[in-house]
Amino acid sequence: MTAWWQGPIQEPDKTYEQKALARQMQLTKPPGSLGRLETLAVTLASHQETDIPSADKVAVRIFAADHGVTEENISAFPQAVTIEMIRNFAGGGAAISVMSKELGADFQVVNVGAASPVDDQPDLLNTPIAAGTANFCQQAAMTEVEFESALLLGKQVVDQLVQQGPQLFIGGEMGIGNTTSAAAIAGALIEGDSDTLVGLGTGVDTAGLQRKQAAVKRGLALHKQVLGNPMEALRCLGGLEIAALTGAYLRCGQLGITVLVDGFICSVAALVAVRFNAALRPWLLFSHQSAESGHQNVLESLQAEPLLSMGLRLGEGSGAATALPLLRLACSLHNKMATFESAGVSQG
Amino acid sequence: MTAWWQGPIQEPDKTYEQKALARQMQLTKPPGSLGRLETLAVTLASHQETDIPSADKVAVRIFAADHGVTEENISAFPQAVTIEMIRNFAGGGAAISVMSKELGADFQVVNVGAASPVDDQPDLLNTPIAAGTANFCQQAAMTEVEFESALLLGKQVVDQLVQQGPQLFIGGEMGIGNTTSAAAIAGALIEGDSDTLVGLGTGVDTAGLQRKQAAVKRGLALHKQVLGNPMEALRCLGGLEIAALTGAYLRCGQLGITVLVDGFICSVAALVAVRFNAALRPWLLFSHQSAESGHQNVLESLQAEPLLSMGLRLGEGSGAATALPLLRLACSLHNKMATFESAGVSQG
Repeated sequence: MTAWWQGPIQEPDKTYEQKALARQMQLTKPPGSLGRLETLAVTLASHQETDIPSADKVAVRIFAADHGVTEENISAFPQAVTIEMIRNFAGGGAAISVMSKELGADFQVVNVGAASPVDDQPDLLNTPIAAGTANFCQQAAMTEVEFESALLLGKQVVDQLVQQGPQLFIGGEMGIGNTTSAAAIAGALIEGDSDTLVGLGTGVDTAGLQRKQAAVKRGLALHKQVLGNPMEALRCLGGLEIAALTGAYLRCGQLGITVLVDGFICSVAALVAVRFNAALRPWLLFSHQSAESGHQNVLESLQAEPLLSMGLRLGEGSGAATALPLLRLACSLHNKMATFESAGVSQG
Repeated sequence: MTAWWQGPIQEPDKTYEQKALARQMQLTKPPGSLGRLETLAVTLASHQETDIPSADKVAVRIFAADHGVTEENISAFPQAVTIEMIRNFAGGGAAISVMSKELGADFQVVNVGAASPVDDQPDLLNTPIAAGTANFCQQAAMTEVEFESALLLGKQVVDQLVQQGPQLFIGGEMGIGNTTSAAAIAGALIEGDSDTLVGLGTGVDTAGLQRKQAAVKRGLALHKQVLGNPMEALRCLGGLEIAALTGAYLRCGQLGITVLVDGFICSVAALVAVRFNAALRPWLLFSHQSAESGHQNVLESLQAEPLLSMGLRLGEGSGAATALPLLRLACSLHNKMATFESAGVSQG
């Protein structure tokens, strides 16, 4: 039986790409002078199969879950913060909540697996798969059922958006301990010393950083038999929210929805998805270079050039939200600038 | 007699800066995790002397003029394009026109000195000082009267904004030949080989680049006696629009209005202004690192870390407009995020 995530990924439309490139050459500016604002518009035109690309209709989905590896004392914040922040997301007080509202994006937080029950509230999809993951230093973080459920939840979240006709999907994450989990997954997929992939996260001290590095090494050693398979690396080392992100990204590719990838943890989810199916890569735009130290390696593995580098390291999709206005301006310029002919401007 | 531009520059308010820094520490995120979005909000709070900074009210003013140095065949586009683009700005078809409208910014183009008369039209302040500059390879680009008139026009443009209470001033420029002029001014103010300051502008070929480099060297040699004075460097090598920008920036500092500086040419105008009065520097935010090769040197001279690097090289204020949404998001986050206390989130 073929699992849903093995289904085919769409291909961006080359005809609309060429038409968009040709239009860019006719707009009243020296060719290429709008740099990445030009290429963004061309990419969105090819994704949307349109002459007038748009990034107006945006869905922001924040996947939250807890991590058994917090037993290793690897975070600057207590585990309770995951649930406190789920409430803060839904209550509108978190960074990504404020940004989504300002940007007119459709917003929801998804409880993929907090350690304790969370009360229902608006803007919360309260569907925990487990009370957090197991500690990957001792066993696989997820059972096969948990893992497939998390992937599927990501898919379902995207499927529920289809009738809105979203032009862009922004995934975010929250989960105390998840930079440790993401570093371990990246360590499984990227050659080299895993220590370079471990950063300060929310702000651990030097001893905390060493504990993170040690936990990652133990996890990689414990599960080394299966780490050649990116999906197994995700299952054994991952978080429920990271698996949901991977499922969501793969589904976006299947449906032909552009993804604006956030920072370190989301990029690791994207790396798993692209290693699993390289056809997904064209659907992914990378929003920013995080201050989290492992992010650069992950971006390089994805051959990704992020749009921004603003020293952000919050997660929550906040870097992707920060980059969203750039995509919108790119579309406005593409759609609304005069051509040399229409404006009576001489060409060089 | 003291000239207006010798008047005192205001100082950003340190009390509001400290209050804003303290608030950032209370918002529901790890301290510092919003990177430059935090520092931008703090800067704007100190400029605006408020607890709730904003970048909503923005004035975009594009200064356009022609350049005698085009006689040296240093541009990929004919001189007529300056006037054609003035019409395109006012007609709403240029990049910065589209962006200003999208961003809800107050927009006007200022004819500081096109080579031929331009018909009046809405959104055009049609006040040419001269029919372009003289060729700086042969004589001073501006007479003293022209130069002081251009500075004054920049001041007057800012003065006319005051009753709007602008929170941000974006200056832009247009003028065939003005990367050559800006490179020459930068060459007067920055140590080293002036060739490194000369770039491809709107897209000259290799022979064109060599003509630009030669013209800059001839200008620097001809006027070397006076180039120790930044204002004299601007008068002898500058464009009328660059002088107007310098005047506008100095006036912003006098009035305490934040400036969002665009690319290479605007940064050169800012460099002149800061060399003339270093107290202006705190009022200048630098929006982007241009693809124009001399920009990095100019930014380094100003100890400026630009917000974006998107390969833009259009000018017109387009890079500053691209960065504007980042400032707005920074303010929204600062003003609207929950605090640890209000949201009941545990601190690390």
